[in-house]
Amino acid sequence: MIDLRSDTVTKPTETMRQLMAKAAVGDDVYEEDPTVNELEAYAAELLGKEAALFTTSGTQGNQAALLTHTVPGQEVLMDEEAHVFIYEGAAISAFAGVQSRTLPHTGGRISPELLKKSVRSDDIHYPETGLIWLENTHNRGGGTYLPEVYLKEVRKIADEAGVPVHMDGARLFNAAEASGMSAARIASYTDSVQFCLSKGLGAPVGSMLAGSASFIRTARKKRKMLGGGMRQAGVIAAPALHALKEHRALLKHDHGHARLLAKAIQSSTDLTIRHDVQTNIVVADTDTSSLSAEEWVARLEQEGIRIIQYKPEALRFTTNSDVSREEVETVCRKLAEIQ
Amino acid sequence: MIDLRSDTVTKPTETMRQLMAKAAVGDDVYEEDPTVNELEAYAAELLGKEAALFTTSGTQGNQAALLTHTVPGQEVLMDEEAHVFIYEGAAISAFAGVQSRTLPHTGGRISPELLKKSVRSDDIHYPETGLIWLENTHNRGGGTYLPEVYLKEVRKIADEAGVPVHMDGARLFNAAEASGMSAARIASYTDSVQFCLSKGLGAPVGSMLAGSASFIRTARKKRKMLGGGMRQAGVIAAPALHALKEHRALLKHDHGHARLLAKAIQSSTDLTIRHDVQTNIVVADTDTSSLSAEEWVARLEQEGIRIIQYKPEALRFTTNSDVSREEVETVCRKLAEIQ
Amino acid sequence: MIDLRSDTVTKPTETMRQLMAKAAVGDDVYEEDPTVNELEAYAAELLGKEAALFTTSGTQGNQAALLTHTVPGQEVLMDEEAHVFIYEGAAISAFAGVQSRTLPHTGGRISPELLKKSVRSDDIHYPETGLIWLENTHNRGGGTYLPEVYLKEVRKIADEAGVPVHMDGARLFNAAEASGMSAARIASYTDSVQFCLSKGLGAPVGSMLAGSASFIRTARKKRKMLGGGMRQAGVIAAPALHALKEHRALLKHDHGHARLLAKAIQSSTDLTIRHDVQTNIVVADTDTSSLSAEEWVARLEQEGIRIIQYKPEALRFTTNSDVSREEVETVCRKLAEIQ
Amino acid sequence: MIDLRSDTVTKPTETMRQLMAKAAVGDDVYEEDPTVNELEAYAAELLGKEAALFTTSGTQGNQAALLTHTVPGQEVLMDEEAHVFIYEGAAISAFAGVQSRTLPHTGGRISPELLKKSVRSDDIHYPETGLIWLENTHNRGGGTYLPEVYLKEVRKIADEAGVPVHMDGARLFNAAEASGMSAARIASYTDSVQFCLSKGLGAPVGSMLAGSASFIRTARKKRKMLGGGMRQAGVIAAPALHALKEHRALLKHDHGHARLLAKAIQSSTDLTIRHDVQTNIVVADTDTSSLSAEEWVARLEQEGIRIIQYKPEALRFTTNSDVSREEVETVCRKLAEIQ
Repeated sequence: MIDLRSDTVTKPTETMRQLMAKAAVGDDVYEEDPTVNELEAYAAELLGKEAALFTTSGTQGNQAALLTHTVPGQEVLMDEEAHVFIYEGAAISAFAGVQSRTLPHTGGRISPELLKKSVRSDDIHYPETGLIWLENTHNRGGGTYLPEVYLKEVRKIADEAGVPVHMDGARLFNAAEASGMSAARIASYTDSVQFCLSKGLGAPVGSMLAGSASFIRTARKKRKMLGGGMRQAGVIAAPALHALKEHRALLKHDHGHARLLAKAIQSSTDLTIRHDVQTNIVVADTDTSSLSAEEWVARLEQEGIRIIQYKPEALRFTTNSDVSREEVETVCRKLAEIQ
Repeated sequence: MIDLRSDTVTKPTETMRQLMAKAAVGDDVYEEDPTVNELEAYAAELLGKEAALFTTSGTQGNQAALLTHTVPGQEVLMDEEAHVFIYEGAAISAFAGVQSRTLPHTGGRISPELLKKSVRSDDIHYPETGLIWLENTHNRGGGTYLPEVYLKEVRKIADEAGVPVHMDGARLFNAAEASGMSAARIASYTDSVQFCLSKGLGAPVGSMLAGSASFIRTARKKRKMLGGGMRQAGVIAAPALHALKEHRALLKHDHGHARLLAKAIQSSTDLTIRHDVQTNIVVADTDTSSLSAEEWVARLEQEGIRIIQYKPEALRFTTNSDVSREEVETVCRKLAEIQ
Repeated sequence: MIDLRSDTVTKPTETMRQLMAKAAVGDDVYEEDPTVNELEAYAAELLGKEAALFTTSGTQGNQAALLTHTVPGQEVLMDEEAHVFIYEGAAISAFAGVQSRTLPHTGGRISPELLKKSVRSDDIHYPETGLIWLENTHNRGGGTYLPEVYLKEVRKIADEAGVPVHMDGARLFNAAEASGMSAARIASYTDSVQFCLSKGLGAPVGSMLAGSASFIRTARKKRKMLGGGMRQAGVIAAPALHALKEHRALLKHDHGHARLLAKAIQSSTDLTIRHDVQTNIVVADTDTSSLSAEEWVARLEQEGIRIIQYKPEALRFTTNSDVSREEVETVCRKLAEIQ
Repeated sequence: MIDLRSDTVTKPTETMRQLMAKAAVGDDVYEEDPTVNELEAYAAELLGKEAALFTTSGTQGNQAALLTHTVPGQEVLMDEEAHVFIYEGAAISAFAGVQSRTLPHTGGRISPELLKKSVRSDDIHYPETGLIWLENTHNRGGGTYLPEVYLKEVRKIADEAGVPVHMDGARLFNAAEASGMSAARIASYTDSVQFCLSKGLGAPVGSMLAGSASFIRTARKKRKMLGGGMRQAGVIAAPALHALKEHRALLKHDHGHARLLAKAIQSSTDLTIRHDVQTNIVVADTDTSSLSAEEWVARLEQEGIRIIQYKPEALRFTTNSDVSREEVETVCRKLAEIQ
């Protein structure tokens, strides 16, 4: 099977497996796991933040950030297709007790004017605006990144409002690769940032949350409450550290593959791509197609290709390091054959 | 001053004051206050529901309903300008732990197609859809009511999805008056409904929540947790009961006054009314005016007229029983003079 | 019926009813109700605090205090029979998200040594200690008050730990009367205090929460979220203000009545009183009696006397201003007859 | 260093490391990781439950259980030194919104009579009793297990009250070893049980939660909300599965070592052991010693032995598979030398 459902499906490489087998470990609840400590220090430095925290998932990193930045009864400004709103089981309200204020967007970008207008004034009826939430790259926006000029504008709005900024950077290094900005430069516009190790970077498990030292100190406690305090976690930190060091450079291949796929979809099918294919995600709308989304998924499955139906009338193809150029070319060929 | 800021500003009539002074009372936490019991029984019957509960505010009725219908981690479908989302301090997330899913609307009506599409399917990433929320009349929609055909469609969607429907009917009797439907008929499309006694009906304090007997039994406990369990509450239930019996018939005057005001605004000012003036609310947009919203509020204040700036570029005039026809005519005259 | 179930059952006097009928009112959500404003100012001054807030119940005052002092994941130190733990529907955990740490006590007094030891140290596993909770007088402790020397010790522990102190003073003026301390002097050892208007003071509805100006500003918002923001609340503030001014002096009669009852219980029944009868509460244990608690309640009911079964083997008699000396003497006589 | 601080400090064996390196993996959020699936199936069978769930920690397993069994505003009956109350950052109240009702105990056993009496009756003031919580073996009770006769009594109380039972069996297999009951037999008295893989069993990371199929289906969603949904988790499930299969039989050595230590402490020091040493935990009280707890910890540290100060006047020694018989004998010798 050629698995394009997500970049989460990537399996650990042989190198990662060997690193696991020989990782130095300790009890991480006591902060004594040397490999976890090394990973956290490396990630903090890479992002230009004072400290970082290893979490078992992006959801956990996001929730720990929410529990640290906000108090119940506040409101978080985000776009209406943010991962935290769509895919995290409403934990934002169930655990942090805050209200998602979802705003219309284009490619993950809420207009700065609307964002500014949506900061609440002081009134006994209103929740306080507690946090601005960015997602970069934006999954449901088709893997698009936030350009620096936009980050600057958001930072300015946040500073004027006295509100912190969190970035769900599950695919932060895809954004860095595509934008040409370093991860640290992107992160410099935020108070905290979360990125995934188990998506395009290919580690088996884990995400990182980075921010100020005091932010991470509190987030570490929130992670413990979420059950993310692990013991000899060095065994998963070791492949994660390798992925973070060595696999960032490979993301450009995934991006190239996505462009290749997009071209094939546009030239040889009646599907429509309405977003700019900037990274490793291709969203193809089926409203122009003679086949429904369900039919496309089923037909590709028959050909040994797995994708996901993303919305009632959209398909998502996600390139990842477990899918080679040859396999991408096979997919391109099969797409043409189906139609 | 002629106070058109809200219909909440109405003061108790002399009759209400005399009823307060001689109300039969008991300890309502023990359900021994005869006047509260009478009010609850009357309200239940009027709405065609098995039971009703006296709360100290519409917010408390809404929150008790949320705490009864939902569990944390669920999602409530509502329009993006619902009172519960804009004006209740995010209590929905802070206390009930549920996520507001706010949808675009016209005059308080989310398109049935969009509503249907927004019910979540079963997926480990998704919050469950726990409740559909209607507001009738719709405050920020300009006091518009939900017509019966719409209520039917929503009920059908709810039944198919197995999701209950709550109506924030703070101004339910304005909706009844304007639509020609009885309150019970409107309520028949819902599982629970809240209405305010202290808005157009003119009681000093209070709202009612109505639903099935078991729903109200649980909501009574939630009200106690919210601190709404009062002792000799008969003293406020007495004027409320009078208001509910005798003042419903007066709402049509407020509606007539609102139409009068709307006509004056359109004929003699450069403000624009973009909604159908169906009840007691007139929202006038200032984007077409030579004066800003702030300036309008200040100028009217100088003339002894109080209104509110509703949005950055909108004013709200709310007619109510404390404002007579003569006073409305005065306002109409002053509006013309200002411009 | 002679109703000794609670001091919450007191009905408004004729004077209170007349005050209701002529109360000056306004919209209290806009802070425009002159009677509520006067009540809040008077209560603040009486307690020596910067500000006060009118709530619809003691539970609401307590919950607003919790929501203002604490954040989720903290721990509140209290005695194991505190009202907030036993009788408030676990709202402390459901809404404020904090953990009750309940400690053994004698007459409402946790030993200072144990209190001190129970403040948490800094550890990733531990909730932070967020608040110390006192109840004065202590309901389940038999209406006993906290003496000044104890208040001083608790304040010292709190200051050393950097933790605020809240007092559930539902019966604060009973404590003041019995201890000879002024309410302001008692309150000086606390950061916030709640007292009830509808218990011994006899107002139909309401409680007050007092504290610093900034504390009350936040608590006012939390009250709104709880649904305690009322409109023309002056109609219930007026009798409450009268009760607060004129009925404090009457509490000593209730206390005398309680001592009378206690004497009769001890001399003419086989019930046992194990606590010091300091205020208006008499708890009589049935473990030494030939009749069970249920039987005592039923027999007294037959004689036109209502009390409550307080625990499986305890009865509570609560004197209050609706029960005259003659009625207390009747109860004493009937108690002897039953046995 | 000889590390007796906890059994969480155990490091993976060479076999476990090799299993990690060659584990079959998949995306566990899609339930496609064969090793995780095997581990979950094996654990469920071993416990005689329909299903099981792999979590990253015991805290996560406990919290997922709470979120599944209870709703906010309920009360959980537990002993006053339960791990969930002392060591989980009040997540029980912060996330599940439930109130811990902590009861006095001996060796982890609340008296059945008290437990029964503590189930709440139906009253508008009371939280409902939502869950009974057992800990087996009991950490702060000195590693003591719950005998079958006790489990039976608790089950009977729970059934009569209509309340489920959860067991925090972090050290369930220590309880099984010491009691002679199988884990399945112990679990048969509960609705759900959590046990740790990373304590005495020696796996690097993880715990299991077991219960009915529908319970685990919901708990899986709650785990996702807590951020415990991992991707290629097979890499940590593989050593966990090995630990669960092969290391249960080794626990008896830890127990023997604990008895050896206890004997040495009693014969050659002035410390006092007040509990029955049944498993791998020895709690030694310092109130009878010429050295304080802090001094004992420091002196042993100088000798290359790490233990923890457990309470202000108590030390905990925890034997584990990384500490050999020879090392235990060294500790015994050093203890004598110190005194």
